[in-house]
Amino acid sequence: MSEVLARLDAVIAERRRSADPATSYVAKLCHGGLDRILKKVAEESGETLLAAKNVERGGDRRELVGETADLWFHCLVMLAKLDLQSSDVLAELDRRFDLSGIAEKAAREHTSRAD
Amino acid sequence: MSEVLARLDAVIAERRRSADPATSYVAKLCHGGLDRILKKVAEESGETLLAAKNVERGGDRRELVGETADLWFHCLVMLAKLDLQSSDVLAELDRRFDLSGIAEKAAREHTSRAD
Amino acid sequence: MSEVLARLDAVIAERRRSADPATSYVAKLCHGGLDRILKKVAEESGETLLAAKNVERGGDRRELVGETADLWFHCLVMLAKLDLQSSDVLAELDRRFDLSGIAEKAAREHTSRAD
Amino acid sequence: MSEVLARLDAVIAERRRSADPATSYVAKLCHGGLDRILKKVAEESGETLLAAKNVERGGDRRELVGETADLWFHCLVMLAKLDLQSSDVLAELDRRFDLSGIAEKAAREHTSRAD
Repeated sequence: MSEVLARLDAVIAERRRSADPATSYVAKLCHGGLDRILKKVAEESGETLLAAKNVERGGDRRELVGETADLWFHCLVMLAKLDLQSSDVLAELDRRFDLSGIAEKAAREHTSRAD
Repeated sequence: MSEVLARLDAVIAERRRSADPATSYVAKLCHGGLDRILKKVAEESGETLLAAKNVERGGDRRELVGETADLWFHCLVMLAKLDLQSSDVLAELDRRFDLSGIAEKAAREHTSRAD
Repeated sequence: MSEVLARLDAVIAERRRSADPATSYVAKLCHGGLDRILKKVAEESGETLLAAKNVERGGDRRELVGETADLWFHCLVMLAKLDLQSSDVLAELDRRFDLSGIAEKAAREHTSRAD
Repeated sequence: MSEVLARLDAVIAERRRSADPATSYVAKLCHGGLDRILKKVAEESGETLLAAKNVERGGDRRELVGETADLWFHCLVMLAKLDLQSSDVLAELDRRFDLSGIAEKAAREHTSRAD
């Protein structure tokens, strides 16, 4: 499973460059501009929350897996649109989690500048 | 970079099981219940949108990378809380993207049951 | 303008009760279940954020007004679906804002139990 | 209840102009910049979703009323920051809902330009 995100980055980059927006969802999203992509990120984030709440009360785990996949996929399209890729995010996670316990939290808060 | 999510799953599982909520952010999140985790997913999703909009007008890419890392990290904690892990999501993405072009979109729409 | 929300509550209640889901958007939403309504709340919330960011850089204020109207409207449908209405929310805001300054914040935090 | 939003607009405008950010939550939010306000809108939107899902399974309606009040309040602060107010949104809702049935939906979709 470990190469899935890198392969997806490559698929997105290729379709963004050369696919027809009439037949490729990725090409259509990328040609539609950043706001169109970000609306999908917001939408899929909401659907992930609802699916997780439904799992809590006995709903289907496949639904949550599917919504989280949708969310991550649209994040990859967002990153590609802004000349970034999954390895940038994974490198950041790697950097943070060499830390442990309370130090991990401190690092996280520093980076995210949470209120 | 490819093993980062699997290693993070392991870190989260371990801390969820045995770390002290007073010193581990992951343990605190997991002991706080699903809603606490999902509030963070919603919050980080919003911050990702804002960071992406800021990159569009010349803002720092590192900010967006950090917010996306926050979002994915809290998704992993959500998955762990519901007895899932990153490999479930990656397997779903792998399954979908053996398809191409319009077929890819059809599969995506079927799975996400978007309005 | 002050009676708009109360009149909208009445419109929503009436359509929820007797309109045809094939011709009334409100009836269709309500018959589609709570998740369908909440997906719209999440979606419109994301679109409100994007519209606000666009106003910040010179975009059209009418866009933001329209997205906020969409967000509030879908909140009213959500409230109706759960046997609440706008006056419940307005009464809560009224109750909170008889307070001032730091006391207002304390009251707000107590009620919202923010992290 | 009908004057609550207009009175809140006035409170927000007054505090934004003259209150001390050290003692007024509104003044602190406004001085913190648009992103700080929008992060709260995103956060409260997520909390509204979770509270609604909890009501669906027997949770406390007061929680949902409180979260929706938080969401609307932060929308008002957002509007104020961008030189708009609740009456702009209410006028838009008024304009739309003189329509009915399918025409209402058509108008809504035209305005929101939903995907």
